[in-house]
Amino acid sequence: MIITTPGQAQGVIGILRGEGDTQTLKIFIGGEKRMNFYERFDHILHHTNSLLCVGLDTVVEKIPPSLRHEDDPLFAFNRAIIDATLPYAAAYKVNTAFYEAHGHAGWRALEATFRYLPADVLKIADAKRGDIGNTSQMYAKSLFSVLNADAVTVNPLMGTDSVAPFLEDETKGVFFLCLTSNAGAQDFQYFSDGTRTLYECIAEKVLTWNERHNCGLVVGATHPQQLQRIRAIAPSLPLLVPGIGAQGGDLEKSVQFGIDENGRGAIYNSSRAIIYASGGEDFQQAAALSAKQTRDALNAAKMIK
Amino acid sequence: MIITTPGQAQGVIGILRGEGDTQTLKIFIGGEKRMNFYERFDHILHHTNSLLCVGLDTVVEKIPPSLRHEDDPLFAFNRAIIDATLPYAAAYKVNTAFYEAHGHAGWRALEATFRYLPADVLKIADAKRGDIGNTSQMYAKSLFSVLNADAVTVNPLMGTDSVAPFLEDETKGVFFLCLTSNAGAQDFQYFSDGTRTLYECIAEKVLTWNERHNCGLVVGATHPQQLQRIRAIAPSLPLLVPGIGAQGGDLEKSVQFGIDENGRGAIYNSSRAIIYASGGEDFQQAAALSAKQTRDALNAAKMIK
Repeated sequence: MIITTPGQAQGVIGILRGEGDTQTLKIFIGGEKRMNFYERFDHILHHTNSLLCVGLDTVVEKIPPSLRHEDDPLFAFNRAIIDATLPYAAAYKVNTAFYEAHGHAGWRALEATFRYLPADVLKIADAKRGDIGNTSQMYAKSLFSVLNADAVTVNPLMGTDSVAPFLEDETKGVFFLCLTSNAGAQDFQYFSDGTRTLYECIAEKVLTWNERHNCGLVVGATHPQQLQRIRAIAPSLPLLVPGIGAQGGDLEKSVQFGIDENGRGAIYNSSRAIIYASGGEDFQQAAALSAKQTRDALNAAKMIK
Repeated sequence: MIITTPGQAQGVIGILRGEGDTQTLKIFIGGEKRMNFYERFDHILHHTNSLLCVGLDTVVEKIPPSLRHEDDPLFAFNRAIIDATLPYAAAYKVNTAFYEAHGHAGWRALEATFRYLPADVLKIADAKRGDIGNTSQMYAKSLFSVLNADAVTVNPLMGTDSVAPFLEDETKGVFFLCLTSNAGAQDFQYFSDGTRTLYECIAEKVLTWNERHNCGLVVGATHPQQLQRIRAIAPSLPLLVPGIGAQGGDLEKSVQFGIDENGRGAIYNSSRAIIYASGGEDFQQAAALSAKQTRDALNAAKMIK
């Protein structure tokens, strides 16, 4: 149910959602100032009582046989996973690579998935883009306007002018790659000038890009000590933390070091461990169970702090 | 005319092409070893007698009015530009951002453009991708198998495992971002450990990734002195040099410092200065003239060396 006056929909002030109850009450107040990305991020984490981001890294070969003959099996699977995991998720992260592997048909599935995601979760396009200014402008249009993502991941290597187009709208967020979850993070991200590493340099630079309160960082759960260091540099930047599922990162430590004093400020992504929890026809139940367990483990880790 | 025996098409050994004469003679010899990317790159530069890469950064607003009502105006424009500039080009670089800005319809135009590009020029997908291993595998599939690009640009920030999937096929090339043409290159690419900068560290690392002779570097023409330094580190890696057109890079110096002893080894990209040489109905003639002048300027710069 949406109570609104046309032209006045400005900010969601209340979302009620319980486990097993995906009904939503939204009340829009006309004339309110638009939430910036930080406010929206915090609001969603508060009202979903979850730090879980579900990663939709969908590959055809892992979709249960009954869905493979659908017109758009990628979207059919995503829809089923979203329906099953929505009570437990604060955010969904859709990695563009898995869709581009199917060319324009994959892009259609990507668009359909973003259209299907409800407004009360954070919709993240994990695209890791970045190019010179006039080109990044096109990527920002693709991800924020065509897909209508709430946030994107951006590779900062090309510097200030390459990221500026992603930061123009204060309601849209950008998570910059800072210290990634993979082994190759060692190659360049730890490169040091003797006093600080490149990943620290990135965190410091992102703070200067944060004029509209819409910057965040990607920090892998596979580096909990460095996550603590990054939190010291950037105490209030929202974090997107991949690597807690199949990649084997440290869930407890990365929650303890990542969250703010309210127990929010960071989301933790799991993809394969949730969406492929079962390859059989019970995949929805298995995904729901895995999502619930992961949300509960994340919330339990908050208590240890 | 193609002379070949089915199943034996292994390597183009001869391409004849003159200015204003886009006919091609290809002779395939059965049983020949497949050319690796370096051999193919060198072969194409030799036989086209050109160092010019034409960048297809196509935006609808700049397409001449007569093409805007075509079913697929992006592709219609690209086809016309390719037809006009083919006598002068060694390579075409298609930047994915400009197509993704139109969602799945843009991806259709991207696919059509790659299908239309002839086999005797280098087809580069400028996508600047890079992600953890299993995800980069999907991007490699998208760019090399779906688009059938001969080469791609890759952002190396995430390190070895993130780039490995792009390097599996020795016939396909990867140009790694090393020192980009934009102002923001200063932010991180010049970060130094006291003895070397990040861009030098990247060039050194790429040499270790080059087991299959299919690695290259992206070095902007806006940094000619640094290009010379990079050439000292990596004397034989193919270079993709953007920034000689609208971005105002130094064409002469970047040719002198970039080419090898045979006057090859590097290609120079111009996008806007060629494809938008005229916004009127004479756009094909203007693009052809601009491409010819740029090719000639590049070849003239070789002579100064």
